Amino acid sequence: MLNRKFAAGMALVVGLCAAASLAAAQTPDVEEKFITAKEEQTAKRLIEKGLKDDTAWTLLESLTTEIGPRLAGSEAEARARDWGVQTLKRLGFKNVRIETFELAYWNRISERAEIVSPFPQKLVITALGHSPSTPDGGVVGEVVRFETLDALETSGADLSGKIIFVDEAMTRTQDGSGYGAAVQKRSRAAIVAAEKGAIAALIRSVGTDSHRNPHTGGSVRGGAALAPAPIAALSNPDADQLARALRLAKGPVRVRLDIQTEFKKSAISGNVIGEIPGKSDELIVVGGHLDSWDLGTGAIDDGAGVAITVAAAKLVGDLKGKPARTIRVVMWGAEETGLWGARAYAKAHKEELARHVLAAESDFGAARIWKFQTRFGDGALAKAKIFQRLLHPLGVGAGNNQAFGGPDVSPLRAAGVPVVDLYQDGSDYFDLHHTPDDTLDKVNPDAVQQNVAAWAATIYLASQMDGGFRDEAD
Amino acid sequence: MLNRKFAAGMALVVGLCAAASLAAAQTPDVEEKFITAKEEQTAKRLIEKGLKDDTAWTLLESLTTEIGPRLAGSEAEARARDWGVQTLKRLGFKNVRIETFELAYWNRISERAEIVSPFPQKLVITALGHSPSTPDGGVVGEVVRFETLDALETSGADLSGKIIFVDEAMTRTQDGSGYGAAVQKRSRAAIVAAEKGAIAALIRSVGTDSHRNPHTGGSVRGGAALAPAPIAALSNPDADQLARALRLAKGPVRVRLDIQTEFKKSAISGNVIGEIPGKSDELIVVGGHLDSWDLGTGAIDDGAGVAITVAAAKLVGDLKGKPARTIRVVMWGAEETGLWGARAYAKAHKEELARHVLAAESDFGAARIWKFQTRFGDGALAKAKIFQRLLHPLGVGAGNNQAFGGPDVSPLRAAGVPVVDLYQDGSDYFDLHHTPDDTLDKVNPDAVQQNVAAWAATIYLASQMDGGFRDEAD
Repeated sequence: MLNRKFAAGMALVVGLCAAASLAAAQTPDVEEKFITAKEEQTAKRLIEKGLKDDTAWTLLESLTTEIGPRLAGSEAEARARDWGVQTLKRLGFKNVRIETFELAYWNRISERAEIVSPFPQKLVITALGHSPSTPDGGVVGEVVRFETLDALETSGADLSGKIIFVDEAMTRTQDGSGYGAAVQKRSRAAIVAAEKGAIAALIRSVGTDSHRNPHTGGSVRGGAALAPAPIAALSNPDADQLARALRLAKGPVRVRLDIQTEFKKSAISGNVIGEIPGKSDELIVVGGHLDSWDLGTGAIDDGAGVAITVAAAKLVGDLKGKPARTIRVVMWGAEETGLWGARAYAKAHKEELARHVLAAESDFGAARIWKFQTRFGDGALAKAKIFQRLLHPLGVGAGNNQAFGGPDVSPLRAAGVPVVDLYQDGSDYFDLHHTPDDTLDKVNPDAVQQNVAAWAATIYLASQMDGGFRDEAD
Repeated sequence: MLNRKFAAGMALVVGLCAAASLAAAQTPDVEEKFITAKEEQTAKRLIEKGLKDDTAWTLLESLTTEIGPRLAGSEAEARARDWGVQTLKRLGFKNVRIETFELAYWNRISERAEIVSPFPQKLVITALGHSPSTPDGGVVGEVVRFETLDALETSGADLSGKIIFVDEAMTRTQDGSGYGAAVQKRSRAAIVAAEKGAIAALIRSVGTDSHRNPHTGGSVRGGAALAPAPIAALSNPDADQLARALRLAKGPVRVRLDIQTEFKKSAISGNVIGEIPGKSDELIVVGGHLDSWDLGTGAIDDGAGVAITVAAAKLVGDLKGKPARTIRVVMWGAEETGLWGARAYAKAHKEELARHVLAAESDFGAARIWKFQTRFGDGALAKAKIFQRLLHPLGVGAGNNQAFGGPDVSPLRAAGVPVVDLYQDGSDYFDLHHTPDDTLDKVNPDAVQQNVAAWAATIYLASQMDGGFRDEAD
């Protein structure tokens, strides 16, 4: 027999639900007005397709195998551009072209280091980008260790003829925030070393791994009053070893450092561009950078970004009918040695920046996306919730409105173009980034598919959503 | 108020316990007759001390930092012998000396590989021990891949002018048993390649890691009818890359391989020996090998073995009074390039092998010991249980009676000397073994202390136990 109290309670609940449904029908959630129910279904279908799509993996395999390392301004990067053009055409993109630009070229020729005394042995190093050469045969000097860059900067010690060693370690974090602090020594140590009379600089690799694979990356980019000192990064185990040698030695530890590098004032790079024409000439710009450092094959930095955004845009392009806005995919060139492609793109497209509705780069590896952030005008923040709601089933949480957008869209962001971050898990990123270990075997195909799903939905929603993201009134 | 039933039950239990105690006192466990209760207490105290002892860590840090890589027959190995003599004397060992011997010397000078076409890029390799040089400037040839060594051996293909590539992968196991199968290709590929007319051989590294650090190790050791082909190992990611290139290329994949190596018919190495004199001239021989491959600093292979056994023997030597038997610590030389030290020791000590009561080497890394095995005469098997019982609190299980003893005691084992294995967890060993990554940072100090504790107890028990381990009657 039905309990009377229970029956009465149920009636009340049913009544409340009905009232709530009625209220919803009468005042639909504020976000609903920006996309149609059909568009929402399409976004969900794109997510399903993305989770099963192999295109990104195939592209990444092809780029990292058939081209391999793609140093900015090199012949390999030129081959990568040809690969990019062929790929975009084959996948059905329109207006496929290369927008070339000039850059200053740097390349490593050879690099060698050893403890000369008191404990003779080789050290594993890599020259940092833009490092000048040592004299032929290298330099030999006593090593002076600094716990941090700050300690070097504030040191009153006489460093004439010495080799400085900045031993600051990097912190592992999911969002990669340890990098910002640790990378300062890569940018500054060679300049400070030169200012203080040192003959060369060594730094502990800016990275979180524990392998004999040093992390390269740009150091000082010219413009300093003084020529920087030759600079190299020790792998983390070699930095440990040098620090131990300094602790155990009863006298000075002397190191030989021999770095030979090459500069050219001018070389050619380019951005590879393809489009899915929309009903309007408003632009959604997405992509990754095509160049990589030379030590690895640029799988996570940034072959993955190229492959993911191209595959995601293709899924949108495969839908029936044109998207509302034009979707432009950019494979930026020469990111690693100074954002040359980013600056060239912003310059070449200066006149159409107002038509850039949204821009975003995938350039933080190939792990799962865990957070979606925006940099929208305050009036457009309600639209962020639509992305967040639809990406949530992929395990993506909502971030703040301080999105970075990616390095190659930073000139666009600076010019007021709204950007988003599809933030990947960076816990392991700095184990691999800029090292010989940035290779395809480190990439998880399932995570790549999750990325493609999230990017496909994002690109589609951005192309369809009423108004832009600069402000409600856009 | 006391429950009557409970009180009666308790009385019964107390009675049973008393009866059991009485039975134990009347018929002590069969093992007890080989050591005294006091000796058992001493063994337990040694375990406690070992778990707190820093000597092994300090030695390992010193050896791997102050000497670093110690290639067999090199000047660095000679410095390591001096380090060994100083160390043993400082720690109070007696009869400290170097027993020198001759060996055939091999060394790498340079090594370089690249895909020439159709996907030009560098490959990370290392020349394998005993590899001959390629002609100056290297050889270029089409790569022919074989899934396994067997497939190469049984292939009827014409390999003239080709570079063969044996792509067999190694299985990760706790006991390292994947190595035995995988290492066959390292020993055989250069010979089979030469027999079939190939100009060079590449193998996938014999190792379980996924870093751009190739694994070196001995290949063919001379005596073959034909000169072996030059041979190098690709790192695992580079083997992946070459296999992918072969799959994606529409035609032949051509590789350049340039290996320059050095042979000397005769060089000098030596075993470093120290002793804790016992009441008898019967010998317990323990140690590790002092040489290492040249790529890493020989922390797990086998600086750890040297450090652990020296530290453990010292703990026994620090006890009041002489041990019953003499404890001899050996730092074997030139293990890696052909067990030169092992053979020299067996030859030099041929006349006293009958006095070798037990021998054991620590040469499987620095991880925790998980299994204790013996190779005792059937009549001495009851004694194995004493070791097993006392090591059990350290997390050490009982193994079988098929112990290997370690590579440098294998000539002793072959001559009938009983051996034991203090089997370390090898799950990660082949990530590091013979690679640049064999460095101190990979060693867990707590695990080293567990090793020292187990070895100290083992050495002490072996020195004190009534009779030997060849048979009950010994």
